[in-house]
Amino acid sequence: MEIEQSTVLYEVVASDISSMISAGTLAAGERVPSVRKLSRQRRVSVSTVVQAYRLLEDRGFIEARPQSGYYVRSRQRPMREPAVSAPPRAPQLVGVHALVSRVLESAKEPGMVPLGTALPHADLVPTSKLRRILTDVARRMPDTLSTYALPPGREDLRRQIALRARDFGVRIDADEIVVTNGCVEAVNLCLRAVAKPGDVIALESPTYFGLLQIIESLGMKALEIPTHPRSGVSLDALELAIDRQKVKACLLMPTVSNPLGSTMSEAAKGRLVRMLAEKGVPLIEDAVYSALHFGDVQPRAAKAYDRTGNVLWCSSFTKTLAPGLRIGWVAPGRYYEQVQMLKFISSVGVSDLPQAAIASFLETGGYDRLLRGLRKSYQNQVQLVTHAISRHFPSGTRVTRPTGGYVLWVEMPKRIDALALYERALAERVSLAPGAMFSASKRYRHCLRVNCGIPWSAHTDAVLRRVGELAAQCGS
Amino acid sequence: MEIEQSTVLYEVVASDISSMISAGTLAAGERVPSVRKLSRQRRVSVSTVVQAYRLLEDRGFIEARPQSGYYVRSRQRPMREPAVSAPPRAPQLVGVHALVSRVLESAKEPGMVPLGTALPHADLVPTSKLRRILTDVARRMPDTLSTYALPPGREDLRRQIALRARDFGVRIDADEIVVTNGCVEAVNLCLRAVAKPGDVIALESPTYFGLLQIIESLGMKALEIPTHPRSGVSLDALELAIDRQKVKACLLMPTVSNPLGSTMSEAAKGRLVRMLAEKGVPLIEDAVYSALHFGDVQPRAAKAYDRTGNVLWCSSFTKTLAPGLRIGWVAPGRYYEQVQMLKFISSVGVSDLPQAAIASFLETGGYDRLLRGLRKSYQNQVQLVTHAISRHFPSGTRVTRPTGGYVLWVEMPKRIDALALYERALAERVSLAPGAMFSASKRYRHCLRVNCGIPWSAHTDAVLRRVGELAAQCGS
Repeated sequence: MEIEQSTVLYEVVASDISSMISAGTLAAGERVPSVRKLSRQRRVSVSTVVQAYRLLEDRGFIEARPQSGYYVRSRQRPMREPAVSAPPRAPQLVGVHALVSRVLESAKEPGMVPLGTALPHADLVPTSKLRRILTDVARRMPDTLSTYALPPGREDLRRQIALRARDFGVRIDADEIVVTNGCVEAVNLCLRAVAKPGDVIALESPTYFGLLQIIESLGMKALEIPTHPRSGVSLDALELAIDRQKVKACLLMPTVSNPLGSTMSEAAKGRLVRMLAEKGVPLIEDAVYSALHFGDVQPRAAKAYDRTGNVLWCSSFTKTLAPGLRIGWVAPGRYYEQVQMLKFISSVGVSDLPQAAIASFLETGGYDRLLRGLRKSYQNQVQLVTHAISRHFPSGTRVTRPTGGYVLWVEMPKRIDALALYERALAERVSLAPGAMFSASKRYRHCLRVNCGIPWSAHTDAVLRRVGELAAQCGS
Repeated sequence: MEIEQSTVLYEVVASDISSMISAGTLAAGERVPSVRKLSRQRRVSVSTVVQAYRLLEDRGFIEARPQSGYYVRSRQRPMREPAVSAPPRAPQLVGVHALVSRVLESAKEPGMVPLGTALPHADLVPTSKLRRILTDVARRMPDTLSTYALPPGREDLRRQIALRARDFGVRIDADEIVVTNGCVEAVNLCLRAVAKPGDVIALESPTYFGLLQIIESLGMKALEIPTHPRSGVSLDALELAIDRQKVKACLLMPTVSNPLGSTMSEAAKGRLVRMLAEKGVPLIEDAVYSALHFGDVQPRAAKAYDRTGNVLWCSSFTKTLAPGLRIGWVAPGRYYEQVQMLKFISSVGVSDLPQAAIASFLETGGYDRLLRGLRKSYQNQVQLVTHAISRHFPSGTRVTRPTGGYVLWVEMPKRIDALALYERALAERVSLAPGAMFSASKRYRHCLRVNCGIPWSAHTDAVLRRVGELAAQCGS
């Protein structure tokens, strides 16, 4: 598998040991297996184990005691999680464009360390296999070039998406799906299908700034709902909000939200879908990170509980398979006609060749193995960044324990101004995502979203240490 | 060249002779060169000339006289053009979705003859060259797959677009261009950048239904401006309209409009751009057919006269190079920041690989030769369809003389209901585009747009004859 080929052996050994430490299988102060013993156990060379232990030492997991060997470092207490959010109860006109725009532009500058933007790393994309498939598709299906691309998109791709939907407990046919230019276009189409300018849309808080920007650009209003960092949106708060005012639609990420990484329980998803169907409020489900859930069992989507066509299920392959190809989809339930027509009106069809290539990869390319590798890599990277933040950030900092994906939400002590920190880090060529980007009510001024998508290195650790130092200086 | 390879020799000979007949070089009743003479002149075999003459006979250009040879048929008078349009003076809320939707869905059914939809024919796309380029690009530039695609799009493509803009008299740099998912997305972004729901947008009348749909979907209003079938929108009428009411933007096709095929004179384009700049009304220029202008000299775009950044110039490669790849662009002048941000918000970037492939084709693929071949093919096909309509449609039918592209606008006698004709043709598996699709005020009920993109055959002639018969039956 591509990912494992590119990961060197001692990294794998180090990752296993750090997992045992994190899980408590190896306790603080305990001696780790001797180099010779681990070399025999794992059937790797002595030098591989030495390299692995040096790496773990660099990362602060173990420490060498002279003449005695390596021991698990006594760690700080596990970091506390942020509390449930408490956004304002009134809908807000959104005004995040200017800040988001500035942050994204700065992140594009060459030589910038992208700690803010949530980009999957190029090393984790199965480039050579995709390339072979594209070449093959262009040869076998010349119509992908010459035929005018029209909605709802290629049938071979829609059939594969319908098949894979079963993994999320979703039973749909190919003809219920519209292929889109990524998940962002899907969400745009859904919002335009169910709501008009001035309408109120309920969201998690904090939420992905891209969703806030869509709402802003469509002249709608955002109603932020209290959200737990691990179990997701508060259903009681959501129900109360809907009863108290006209909410036109909900736009939620029930499985692996961004930036919190929360996932609602199965029971909560069922209750959510039933409640919204009863109240006649459509649910736009943004599922773009859900295939990157870390658990052994893939959680069911909210769409799996949909009996009335009230859930519009949006996702894409940009976070898992091919960031450059921008292929997403939506299963819009009873809004199918409106969504398909809006797709035609706003950009006609989706480029045919990338669709055919992704369909072919899903059929024969080992997508499941790819996902298993990605989840493992990202879980490991999230753990390493968490560990670095625990060592380097000001005391009192809290951090999420994401259920999947590759971002962390970091809540620093209230006195620390994340926007000032953003500016200072930028001057040192580190791009951060300040918390205010993730709220329509300009909350989270002491928070950051941190990207763990970059493969870990001593450099990343050094950068996080420096950001931690700058953070301490930004306290008032 | 791909196109010429796929066109057989006798087709080329026939096309040259029919051009001479249309141009009057060979007059009605005149004897055409003998088979032997033409064979010597053109250095082709006798049997090629015989085939060419038989084709011209089938097409009604010449007739055989026993023992004497072939003579130019005495033709009907050249068909009259439609008059300048006279739409209502008040802005209209648009309501074309339902009709357009029905027509497009019916056109997709298998076995349907697509006389309504304006689709370039697959035979005219340089598929094998594009395929080679795509394969090469995927091999040389693996980052096209693994890098997250972000606005404004690939620099290599934007540089090529800026270079080619010179052909239209437009002097812009690569960094003034945003790559889009086709021209339709470009127009959507521009309208959203310059206007809000409720605002009035001035358009040609009749105009492309896709533009009306965009306006409808954004809750804006359409103001149809009187338009001449060959010289385009009436500047006097446009100026009067702007003086009389608040017009937020103009959305026009100054070179090769759809469906009329009109092109404004250079002087008129200059006056249009100056007038709109003075009045502070931005011009969105839809230039999607302008590279298919039939003239020897490529007309300058309205954008060429833009000194203030007031013209947002939109176009694409879907009508010329690769319908399936959906690569378009916009040079939004002083609205660059808004358009780029809206592009990010509505669908992030454009798939990287098709961008790289088109950039590579533009560099080395012989795009100019491709365009020359397309113009010649389409001009020939437009001529043949016009000729067939002149023979088969009810007397009193008028037809445009398009300056480029591959559609005709057919104005039948007022008594003929084009919607009824559409339904009757549909029952015989022929898909038409009734005139009402092209107006916000439901005008043009006796008109049709006819697609000439299909390579001509005896079957097309038979289909047009049948449509003509049905039209006669639809008169009240």
